[in-house]
Amino acid sequence: MTNPSLLILPGDGIGPEVMAEVRKIIDWYGAKRDLAFDVSEGLVGGASYDAHGTPLTDETMEQAQSVDAVLLGAVGGPKYDNLDFSVKPERGLLRLRKEMDLYANLRPAQCFDALADFSSLKKDVVAGLDIMIVRELTSGIYFGEPRGIFEEGNERVGINTQRYTESEIERVARSAFELARRRGNKVCSMEKANVMESGILWREVVQKVHDEEYPDVELSHMYADAGAMQLCRWPKQFDVIVTDNLFGDLLSDAAAMLTGSLGMLPSASLGAPMANGRPKALYEPVHGSAPDIAGQGKANPIACILSFAMALRYSFDMGDEADRLEKAVEKVLADGVRTADLLGEEGVTPVSTSEMGDAIVAAL
Amino acid sequence: MTNPSLLILPGDGIGPEVMAEVRKIIDWYGAKRDLAFDVSEGLVGGASYDAHGTPLTDETMEQAQSVDAVLLGAVGGPKYDNLDFSVKPERGLLRLRKEMDLYANLRPAQCFDALADFSSLKKDVVAGLDIMIVRELTSGIYFGEPRGIFEEGNERVGINTQRYTESEIERVARSAFELARRRGNKVCSMEKANVMESGILWREVVQKVHDEEYPDVELSHMYADAGAMQLCRWPKQFDVIVTDNLFGDLLSDAAAMLTGSLGMLPSASLGAPMANGRPKALYEPVHGSAPDIAGQGKANPIACILSFAMALRYSFDMGDEADRLEKAVEKVLADGVRTADLLGEEGVTPVSTSEMGDAIVAAL
Ligand SMILES: CC(C)[C@H](C(=O)O)[C@@H](O)C(=O)O
Ligand SMILES: CC(C)[C@H](C(=O)O)[C@@H](O)C(=O)O
Repeated sequence: MTNPSLLILPGDGIGPEVMAEVRKIIDWYGAKRDLAFDVSEGLVGGASYDAHGTPLTDETMEQAQSVDAVLLGAVGGPKYDNLDFSVKPERGLLRLRKEMDLYANLRPAQCFDALADFSSLKKDVVAGLDIMIVRELTSGIYFGEPRGIFEEGNERVGINTQRYTESEIERVARSAFELARRRGNKVCSMEKANVMESGILWREVVQKVHDEEYPDVELSHMYADAGAMQLCRWPKQFDVIVTDNLFGDLLSDAAAMLTGSLGMLPSASLGAPMANGRPKALYEPVHGSAPDIAGQGKANPIACILSFAMALRYSFDMGDEADRLEKAVEKVLADGVRTADLLGEEGVTPVSTSEMGDAIVAAL
Repeated sequence: MTNPSLLILPGDGIGPEVMAEVRKIIDWYGAKRDLAFDVSEGLVGGASYDAHGTPLTDETMEQAQSVDAVLLGAVGGPKYDNLDFSVKPERGLLRLRKEMDLYANLRPAQCFDALADFSSLKKDVVAGLDIMIVRELTSGIYFGEPRGIFEEGNERVGINTQRYTESEIERVARSAFELARRRGNKVCSMEKANVMESGILWREVVQKVHDEEYPDVELSHMYADAGAMQLCRWPKQFDVIVTDNLFGDLLSDAAAMLTGSLGMLPSASLGAPMANGRPKALYEPVHGSAPDIAGQGKANPIACILSFAMALRYSFDMGDEADRLEKAVEKVLADGVRTADLLGEEGVTPVSTSEMGDAIVAAL
């Protein structure tokens, strides 16, 4: 049997630094648990633009299609702000999502006990919080046509199109219901059906998938503006939230911030099963490229490391190994080991990005 | 000189109850400050649908066009959930916004000192918070064509169109800069220029209006997902936020919730100046129709009363009278008078909707 294959795309800003720590974890699994991965590495985002004039080359795209899982760091930075839209760093990431057809973006918003004080919310509102946002990732206004900036009379008009087919909604709804069954068995679907027809179709299809295939799961619907409110008011009312690409972008970022653990949150983007039964998959931290602190050893590698834990769970069916890694992270936090983003409490041990990686390896 | 004219549209749910309290305030101004208004009343939303089969009649629409200001309560309720999209209660409100061309929706997110403990956020994060969200209200994905649910192959597809012209962006940007000059002199503009071309045009036009007309105002740009995060993390970094119709819907609801004062927050929707120099204007509370508590004397009338204060300020140039009304509200709160939504502290006096109105009149 061949080893499972990983493509690592560190990207921009703090991406390379945090990914270096993930490599330590991967090496540990190879050496100590006899889980060897075939690892290759490539460029994405600004790093790829600098080398090749495009945020993702066709070769790297092909490679991503052929491996078992892609691990991505982060893309973007002020250096690339004035690039043409078509070659912006983000286009590399969006091309990966679209061409790999990674329609289900899983974004856990979890509050780590040791870090509950970091939230801007009151401790009782967030302590123990554990919700999963399932964001549709390959359609909606991110990709709909027509799009662009056009001349109209004597002025310009900017146009984007929100567009969802029934089957696009069905498949992401199924992902949400499947996840809910393995968690709190509750799904809340969010849209603006009071204002948008695409939201009406969204609500109808989610309800139909529920009634026909998942009647045992508790389903509710909420307008996305009310959802943003309720996330800020009492996030623990939610278990799984399913929503479209754009609402998911805002709501998952807000939810991540609520936990106070932004540097801690991983994500998985999953597509259809490949020939070997594994889903197409890309794993990345929820945080961005943080160019302001890049290269200073200040970045927190935990989000990226926990993204690898998600890979163990969702791509390689190694839930036990994922648990092991997550427990190691919790232990290190409980021991008071903290990167620069999490300082401020009494009695903690400040460490660099690399020392945090070492501490997690040691805890393993 | 004729009296200024007001059209009152109480709408659904708690709308009529809270509006009854606003009438007491209006009467007080007529009796005690010699500020008589010509007040007429009409139906909107579900109430209009029940009476006329449409959420807004042409007659009421015409009336709204001809008065100096419209005061609206709230629209919607579960009773109307299964109505056809075209006659849903919300369509009445959206028609008013669109046909009156109320392009600038002003949504203050303010934390009242007496109520800071009600926020789910830590007190130091929200105490003293005072931001103004300026939401574009007559364009974008709320109104863009094509829209609808269409057959495509053997499935359906839901489509909505985000669409902004340069002049639509310019005029709302001006509103934001004008407001900023009278406040903290800072504007943050939010879009997704990294993903949407309409966001690129938005950013470019806001920057141009700034550079050509308001170089004295401090301008920054933020992606809307980062904006949602920053609102949850440290909202006091903002003064005026300007954003599009859909982002504004979510971000202003999140911001409102942060303050802990949802039952307290008013809004103004302003259009171009009429022949008499007053802007077209509609004032309404940020909260919804709250059908679950309607008719029980539990609703908080303050948001609707403060909406009338905004009318005094923005429609009738009576800033002093608006200040007077706002101070009366603050005094009543400082005295510990509380409607059902704000109970829970020690030593407060619980009152009904109507008693709250009376208390504010007494404080005037
Ligand atoms: C970088 C950007 C294109 C991306 C998005 O908008 O989807 C990011 O915000 C995210 O949430 O993954
Ligand atoms: C009632 C609804 C149509 C409306 C909107 O989406 O604009 C409301 O949520 C608001 O924010 O005023």
